[in-house]
Amino acid sequence: MKEYQKSKLNRVKRGHNRAVYDVEKINTILDAGFIGFVSYIYEEKAISLPMAYGRNGDKIYLHSSQANRMLLSLLDAGEMSMTVMHLDALVLARSGLHHSVNYRSATVFGSVKEIKTSKEKETALHCFMEHMMKGRWDGIRPIKPEELERTLVVEMTIETASAKVRDVGVNDEPEDYNLPIWAGLVPLKQIALPPISDKDLKERLQIPNHVIKYYNMHK
Amino acid sequence: MKEYQKSKLNRVKRGHNRAVYDVEKINTILDAGFIGFVSYIYEEKAISLPMAYGRNGDKIYLHSSQANRMLLSLLDAGEMSMTVMHLDALVLARSGLHHSVNYRSATVFGSVKEIKTSKEKETALHCFMEHMMKGRWDGIRPIKPEELERTLVVEMTIETASAKVRDVGVNDEPEDYNLPIWAGLVPLKQIALPPISDKDLKERLQIPNHVIKYYNMHK
Repeated sequence: MKEYQKSKLNRVKRGHNRAVYDVEKINTILDAGFIGFVSYIYEEKAISLPMAYGRNGDKIYLHSSQANRMLLSLLDAGEMSMTVMHLDALVLARSGLHHSVNYRSATVFGSVKEIKTSKEKETALHCFMEHMMKGRWDGIRPIKPEELERTLVVEMTIETASAKVRDVGVNDEPEDYNLPIWAGLVPLKQIALPPISDKDLKERLQIPNHVIKYYNMHK
Repeated sequence: MKEYQKSKLNRVKRGHNRAVYDVEKINTILDAGFIGFVSYIYEEKAISLPMAYGRNGDKIYLHSSQANRMLLSLLDAGEMSMTVMHLDALVLARSGLHHSVNYRSATVFGSVKEIKTSKEKETALHCFMEHMMKGRWDGIRPIKPEELERTLVVEMTIETASAKVRDVGVNDEPEDYNLPIWAGLVPLKQIALPPISDKDLKERLQIPNHVIKYYNMHK
């Protein structure tokens, strides 16, 4: 089991019994979604914005137009952090302060650089798109050189990370278990609804297999 | 229609046609969820972590134990920003770079202070819990003075904000509409599954109405 080394930066301080440093477990959390909250500093203020990402090994890929304030600022800083969270349940306890949520959350820290050659950009965008939906890349119109040129592609190398996972039931104060108060979980889940074909489809195109497969896995 | 004034901080630079400054629309985005990504600066690095929040008017309430690194750091800074996002659909275009997602995302900026009196803390926690699930507060064991004491409650006053919303179909390059490539949306939605009673419920307690109501609204 390969683990990220604990440091001041990534050590989970509160609820350390929920802390995860295992590289594979953290990768599983990253791969269960494709929207991360990327943090940056703008005029001495910390801001985070949602961005789609792809992962390959210890690399995270982001992209945007060439003028994106956040990505340019990350490249200036040379480093970034990103947080991904999946919400799994409301935890409804007998007392207010024991209310909680079940979740899987990972924060990754690392260096960033701009990907500049067309070939590397295309590889990064392939990873990015396949992360969002497996099989999509081969189902679409190939990317054009001028599109690659006007796209800013950023590669993060994950240097350290930590995750927190809560996946248990209600924990109440011992004396509260005798109260006539209902407690329990309400599981939450993100699902896909049936695909909706673009109204401007020129021919009677069938919904392709990779889209059907995505829907079946997420419905 | 009341709007947040645009400034360098909150002005949406990329995709400004999706920008929203309207206070009520932004409140609607905030109220559609209860997990926000709160950003702070730790040793010159920007980090964001998910936190549950409640909203009342222009106030956002967060809470934690008294030793939470992030909340203490926000109180030190005297200000914070928080981003909330709801993912509504995958937008699958005919070309890679027109792939997108439909979403509602809001970022709020403002000052923060610690709530110190027990009465104000209780009011803030009431708001916090009712934001997560309406009706829950009255269904649980009242909070004890010592619980209030060991809880750190932070009140943010929203001073400015902006949101971005994408809620349209696929936008492709004009010449790509003739390609035999399927395009369309895959709607995404967070749903609740049936409530699961705590295995340690001492009596045959029924699932209360406020929980059933939440489930029915989110299933």
